[in-house]
Amino acid sequence: MSKSAAILVIGDEILSGRTQDTNSGHIARVLAGLGIALMEIRVVGDDEERIVEALNSLRRTHDLVFTTGGIGPTHDDITADAVAKAFGVSIGYHPEAWRLLEARYPPGEFNEARKRMARVPQGAALIPNAVSVAPGFHIGNVYVMAGVPMVMRAMLEQVVPELPRGRPSIAITIEAGVMEGTVAAGLAAIQKREREVAIGSYPFYRDTGSGVQLVARGQDPEAVERAATAIEAHLHALGVAAQRIKRVVPDGQS
Amino acid sequence: MSKSAAILVIGDEILSGRTQDTNSGHIARVLAGLGIALMEIRVVGDDEERIVEALNSLRRTHDLVFTTGGIGPTHDDITADAVAKAFGVSIGYHPEAWRLLEARYPPGEFNEARKRMARVPQGAALIPNAVSVAPGFHIGNVYVMAGVPMVMRAMLEQVVPELPRGRPSIAITIEAGVMEGTVAAGLAAIQKREREVAIGSYPFYRDTGSGVQLVARGQDPEAVERAATAIEAHLHALGVAAQRIKRVVPDGQS
Repeated sequence: MSKSAAILVIGDEILSGRTQDTNSGHIARVLAGLGIALMEIRVVGDDEERIVEALNSLRRTHDLVFTTGGIGPTHDDITADAVAKAFGVSIGYHPEAWRLLEARYPPGEFNEARKRMARVPQGAALIPNAVSVAPGFHIGNVYVMAGVPMVMRAMLEQVVPELPRGRPSIAITIEAGVMEGTVAAGLAAIQKREREVAIGSYPFYRDTGSGVQLVARGQDPEAVERAATAIEAHLHALGVAAQRIKRVVPDGQS
Repeated sequence: MSKSAAILVIGDEILSGRTQDTNSGHIARVLAGLGIALMEIRVVGDDEERIVEALNSLRRTHDLVFTTGGIGPTHDDITADAVAKAFGVSIGYHPEAWRLLEARYPPGEFNEARKRMARVPQGAALIPNAVSVAPGFHIGNVYVMAGVPMVMRAMLEQVVPELPRGRPSIAITIEAGVMEGTVAAGLAAIQKREREVAIGSYPFYRDTGSGVQLVARGQDPEAVERAATAIEAHLHALGVAAQRIKRVVPDGQS
């Protein structure tokens, strides 16, 4: 049975539409490759009560939770405090985080704001930050990472080796210049036979023509291949040209 | 008091990392311009139970809920059924939706799959689709829209005139080539004085240099301007060059 995961994105800048969240897509692709089932993404603002509520809901219903955002030095960075509150533990300076950060700044520049980045909840383990030093942390089943994409990715790389592995999710994508409504009945019949495979249908509209991408996705490579072949045979029977635009790759990795 | 809103994004393709969700950012910017406070975004897969649970949670805690995805003709399009179940109402063919769709296809091509797109929950009102005919719908405080961005945007345009208005959110962004930790204490002091304004700090790392974007955001234009001016004065006092890269615009609209 695959482990389940959720992502909690923290930041007013996502909810205002100022910033496009790309972190959750990146985490999603990494998790798919590890065979961990991402079940939900939530975005909340820089509000302690809402972070606590969302985190407690997600960490109780999923094996793993990944948060992004809110661990910098400014007043709006409140994730560490909110995580401590969610877990009902105290928060304080972590000696190793303090040492790393103190060493980073010239004498006199390790100020109060920067010291805030050394505060982690009691019992948390640090996640190293190869980009900008200030660490993330891991407590219980929750991984707390930065919001800046480059920093978040560096932290996730550190976390990956300790994550549980399942069977990676595999996807085959077939693109055809046909309308969804024409292939829907055939797809439904294939889906009915292939219970272990999730068959998705995604229409596209391009200047060069519209059509549909049909995706067979699952953890059993043989079943995914069988479903993809059945989709191709169905399109052939309808007289529709089709091509595999992605081969068998971990879902989302190509 | 501003109305509150949530977005429910529905689709396996987001959770697998295959597709980058851009719909919620677009809705976020439109809502900010209308003065509606977006409080949460959730993403769930094509799973009836999870859609029902998320929708019932969100529609009870927010004034408005916008969903995207899952209203096409294929077997994985289950949003309409899930919404009916969440509201505890029956679902059936909507006469006007049927008429629109029937007129769209050549004789004999309005097949069972396409007829599915005419199914809406009892009591729902249609949301016109100027791009590809198949409508969205509105029931209670929930607006159900397509997942294809071009179609979603066309539906949202139809919905906007009937949404409640508040004071639009206004943002001023100031960019400076300085580290967050240097300005954090001054920012916190300004935030403490300007309770009606949310001051956000967003570091960036570019090939041309790193720095921070400081955003003053709120519904009172005078308070936002006062906070922005205070931020500029603080940067000036630190000897840091700064520039307003966005003027006073509805949040996220520039």
